[in-house]
Amino acid sequence: MRERRYSSTSPERLAAALFDVAAESGLEGASVREVAKRAGVSIGAVQHHFSTKDEMFAFALRTLVDKLLARLSEVERGGDPARALFAAMSQLLPLDEARSREAHVMAAFAVRAATSPSLAEIRRKTLFTIRTGLSAVLIGIGTPEAETRAALLLATVDGLALDAIGSPALYPPEYLEHALDIQIGMILQGADVVPSSSIELAS
Amino acid sequence: MRERRYSSTSPERLAAALFDVAAESGLEGASVREVAKRAGVSIGAVQHHFSTKDEMFAFALRTLVDKLLARLSEVERGGDPARALFAAMSQLLPLDEARSREAHVMAAFAVRAATSPSLAEIRRKTLFTIRTGLSAVLIGIGTPEAETRAALLLATVDGLALDAIGSPALYPPEYLEHALDIQIGMILQGADVVPSSSIELAS
Repeated sequence: MRERRYSSTSPERLAAALFDVAAESGLEGASVREVAKRAGVSIGAVQHHFSTKDEMFAFALRTLVDKLLARLSEVERGGDPARALFAAMSQLLPLDEARSREAHVMAAFAVRAATSPSLAEIRRKTLFTIRTGLSAVLIGIGTPEAETRAALLLATVDGLALDAIGSPALYPPEYLEHALDIQIGMILQGADVVPSSSIELAS
Repeated sequence: MRERRYSSTSPERLAAALFDVAAESGLEGASVREVAKRAGVSIGAVQHHFSTKDEMFAFALRTLVDKLLARLSEVERGGDPARALFAAMSQLLPLDEARSREAHVMAAFAVRAATSPSLAEIRRKTLFTIRTGLSAVLIGIGTPEAETRAALLLATVDGLALDAIGSPALYPPEYLEHALDIQIGMILQGADVVPSSSIELAS
């Protein structure tokens, strides 16, 4: 009986269950008991894969980050840089139900990183990876202060997501898209390639 | 005995205790029991002031917001707008120990607002108040897209704070100040008053 329960789950399924619980009730609701219940397995089955709650959280955060980074890396690099940056960064904004859930859980992990070294390490690597990717795009088109502007673009998106998750009425999707467009226009000011959105902005 | 315990505390003292617990262990650590313990009072004394944990959280968030808004309103409005915006917004960045604790607790409340209507309402009003204040400054100096840029400036600061609280090594104080300076320079591009920081930026 125990064996059957163990074989009926996987770390990935538990990470998905944790994500669902956290998206609905926050990370504070994602106890081992609740995750087990959501995954339809015993508490022992969760403990078989994760010896601590922190380990379970770290695996769930890595799973979510991997999914987001995969989506970011799928964005077309060629063509208009403003459009490419918009396509990448809009993956991290709560523009629909799925991304609202992701933004909520990501922000919850970001806060939890302040008190959890294992989450902090994953978060640090993630921020570094995204900043490096954005920097490469900005440097490639001769943007001034490329590295700082890359960090600012990421911070703006993280901040818009944080502000929006508790106040969706103040930050509807079309508003978030407009704001992202304006920020990208400002970020690209002074670059060799003047993007269409910054021409709009200057008018 | 009961009376003496009740009279020995106040909602303000409990809010301060909650803030201390949350700054050290996150909001998930701020149970009624822990807050009572930190304040040196009985659980009953907490319950005398707050009938639910949500009520206690809402009072603590309002207390923190009032403190931050008071600091923002103390900033000198006259003189260089870039300097005034920098002075105001740097209150919200984790530039020292006190502001790191505030940024951590504010971000934790922002995430909790996604699942708590009472916290969401306080958060919504706070964002609206700060955005309106920033907009007024930007409109006053003829900044294009003033309202959107005001929301972007606030989002950038919220995002930098969120990114920094779990990754202080990636976002040391001098880096955060430099990033804020660059963002303000971009925000003020096209305004009637060209601030000193955007001249630096263009070089």
